[in-house]
Amino acid sequence: MKNTLLAPDIRDLISKDNFQEVLDFCESSNPAMVAEALSGLTPREIWQILSRLKPDIRALIFSEFDEEVQVEMANTLNRKEFAALITDMPPDDRVDLLKNIPEDQREALLPALAQAEREDIRRLSSYPEGTAGSVMTSDYALLSAELTAKEAIEQLRREAPDKETIYYAYVVDNNRKLIGLISLKDLILSAPTARIGDIMNRDVISVRATDDQEEAALKIQKYDLLALPVVNGNDNLVGIITHDDAIDIFSEEHTEDLEKLMAIRGEHEARAYMRTPAWVHFKNRSVWILLLAMLGLVSGYIVQNYSDLLLQVALLATFMPMLADTGGNTGSQSAALVIRALAVNEITPKDFFLVLFKEMKVAILLGLMLAVFVYARVILFTQTSGSPAGYSVAMLGIAIAVALCFQVFTATLIGAALPMIAAWLNKDPAVVASPFLTTTVDITGLLIFFSTAKYILGF
Amino acid sequence: MKNTLLAPDIRDLISKDNFQEVLDFCESSNPAMVAEALSGLTPREIWQILSRLKPDIRALIFSEFDEEVQVEMANTLNRKEFAALITDMPPDDRVDLLKNIPEDQREALLPALAQAEREDIRRLSSYPEGTAGSVMTSDYALLSAELTAKEAIEQLRREAPDKETIYYAYVVDNNRKLIGLISLKDLILSAPTARIGDIMNRDVISVRATDDQEEAALKIQKYDLLALPVVNGNDNLVGIITHDDAIDIFSEEHTEDLEKLMAIRGEHEARAYMRTPAWVHFKNRSVWILLLAMLGLVSGYIVQNYSDLLLQVALLATFMPMLADTGGNTGSQSAALVIRALAVNEITPKDFFLVLFKEMKVAILLGLMLAVFVYARVILFTQTSGSPAGYSVAMLGIAIAVALCFQVFTATLIGAALPMIAAWLNKDPAVVASPFLTTTVDITGLLIFFSTAKYILGF
Repeated sequence: MKNTLLAPDIRDLISKDNFQEVLDFCESSNPAMVAEALSGLTPREIWQILSRLKPDIRALIFSEFDEEVQVEMANTLNRKEFAALITDMPPDDRVDLLKNIPEDQREALLPALAQAEREDIRRLSSYPEGTAGSVMTSDYALLSAELTAKEAIEQLRREAPDKETIYYAYVVDNNRKLIGLISLKDLILSAPTARIGDIMNRDVISVRATDDQEEAALKIQKYDLLALPVVNGNDNLVGIITHDDAIDIFSEEHTEDLEKLMAIRGEHEARAYMRTPAWVHFKNRSVWILLLAMLGLVSGYIVQNYSDLLLQVALLATFMPMLADTGGNTGSQSAALVIRALAVNEITPKDFFLVLFKEMKVAILLGLMLAVFVYARVILFTQTSGSPAGYSVAMLGIAIAVALCFQVFTATLIGAALPMIAAWLNKDPAVVASPFLTTTVDITGLLIFFSTAKYILGF
Repeated sequence: MKNTLLAPDIRDLISKDNFQEVLDFCESSNPAMVAEALSGLTPREIWQILSRLKPDIRALIFSEFDEEVQVEMANTLNRKEFAALITDMPPDDRVDLLKNIPEDQREALLPALAQAEREDIRRLSSYPEGTAGSVMTSDYALLSAELTAKEAIEQLRREAPDKETIYYAYVVDNNRKLIGLISLKDLILSAPTARIGDIMNRDVISVRATDDQEEAALKIQKYDLLALPVVNGNDNLVGIITHDDAIDIFSEEHTEDLEKLMAIRGEHEARAYMRTPAWVHFKNRSVWILLLAMLGLVSGYIVQNYSDLLLQVALLATFMPMLADTGGNTGSQSAALVIRALAVNEITPKDFFLVLFKEMKVAILLGLMLAVFVYARVILFTQTSGSPAGYSVAMLGIAIAVALCFQVFTATLIGAALPMIAAWLNKDPAVVASPFLTTTVDITGLLIFFSTAKYILGF
């Protein structure tokens, strides 16, 4: 058997009506690998192959395609074919697909589905984007506490083809309240006659459907889980989130964090840079760029306002951009560290003063280092002849060094404090974008710079 | 049974010599949850409890503590106790622990271990940090192709307590070459008499031990795997990386990417912000801050150089900081998007021109928007009386708008190109830190600004 097939090979085999080799490859390989191999073909060609596969394998491979390709393929199907495909798809994937097709098409399709599927779709799509409920699947394995281990394994074996995972099975009471968890490993290690109710683990780690999806992913990471049960407000089991969902959630959240940090708006999947049209990129980026440009003008007014001082002490102009940049750099660094520590739950808003104290220490070290550097720079490279009367080069050096020290100190603390405050207000800490911070500490920095210089030089 | 115990409860129970309740909790709960509950105690108190547990459970809970706590506990043990603990720990975790204890202690310990453990530790620690080999474990389940499904399940049941996972088992030939994979699900679905060699999956997705750990994590994500086999240069199976390792790898890499993007050096774990002393933070951040401050002085020289122009056209000073900032903002945005798209393997250096073309389109849209904004700003809010002879307000508006447009265009393309070039040179794209970019496009931006203004206004 060939390990992989490439799109040209596949096209060649199809044109010779030699489907068997392609079908063998599809049935014996990882669905994501098959989808990758087929992705060079047109949606119509892909469906030619998928339509000849067993329904369950077909649905799994179909689920691995990008959403646009799924929608294109769906458009080539009649209502009955589409309904059959939808029925076989994993519940979470089909809800995602249905969200991507036009509403009239969706409305036309629903009556062709069985009552149970309709109910399931309605329930899964009822949770807002970003919640644990919105990413869970309803294909979990359920066991009765009364079964023996042997009977439970027998039941899991029968249900395996329809379940997302059979490695964890859940136990609920008569009110569907989640009361236990048992792994397949524990089942095969137990005596065949042991009752599930006696051997199950009652300490089940779970998440609420309305909780943030990142909360769920963090629990899966922390407790090394294969799957995490999702419960509603009455502690009824309503779904599970699996380990692969957790990875995708982290990947998506990380892209979002990074983009927010760079002042880019808009929500999207993790792998959508190339697929997103230029004008959507423009929309996502332009609002902040424009607002920041407006804010940036404030710096200009400050420079203009102190133009007399700049005229008298020309050397100040040389250090002005560096001072502004350095504030932005140090502030962005501390903001990035605090945002990340908040994201991985290492710190909480309660640690406000601890974090500020730590950043203060770092800021003092950075400030002193830069002050020494800039003072040396002024003293060593300034021709005394060039310095106007009224103040010495040493005083000028001290003025610039003190201003820089202040600037680094305030910028670092602002950079650390803003994300903490955002978190405390239950906002995403990453909204404190680095460009916003840079522009803000530009303004505070110029004010510090000019007023310090004025004061020390005695103007 | 209590669902969870808190540190004060536990201390209370211990002081009354009532260990049983604590031990029940430890044995029936998730190891990470137990470690969390015990983390309020001193290392000595923790060990008092752990020492009374079954060796395998003790080793699992011990592995969940932070490395410093592990080292502290290890220091309270005699060599024999420590050797016993090390022997029971998961192979990947014990290698991590051994890396964290002083070399003389490690050398003293090794002879107390069995030959097999010593060999295993030597092998696992031979791969450099950051490779797939450095994060793999050697506790994988191995099956012979000759076994029947029933015999295989029997073998997995016997070996389960010692294996990281029994949900995937691997098949190797006589030369230890990896030839197949079978899941426990497939095993229980197969006829009990089926031969492993016939039912196993021969299309095994694997990774080389010397590959980057992120490569391994990306494969686990892409193919939704529970575990990924690691092979050496001869295709011999040498270990596995599990789904929970993949999450930790991503988490670590995300932190690293973010820090590099903010010009922070140094390698460390994902959750180490608070544990890292202020002077280490200082060391990680200071080098770039100092280099960037030096680079920032170049902007100052440019401003100084054009001070005559600024004197004659005072309004230029008002727009100068905004122009510099806007370049940094747009450049950082495109750099962040390109770095992320490279990180998730959505694009490769081969897409250089595609990416640049897309960013060019976005840059033109952003540039035009800002040009219109800044032109309107100049026209509407400039008192004609204030404008010196020799050029009109309209010309001034055009000069600033054109300069801003150029600045956005070059900054965006530089922001997109540098990470692509880094990737092409096999460097981490995230080395193109946003602060570096900001400082660089400050310089190019000021040059563009002054030369455009000079040219258009005819000085």
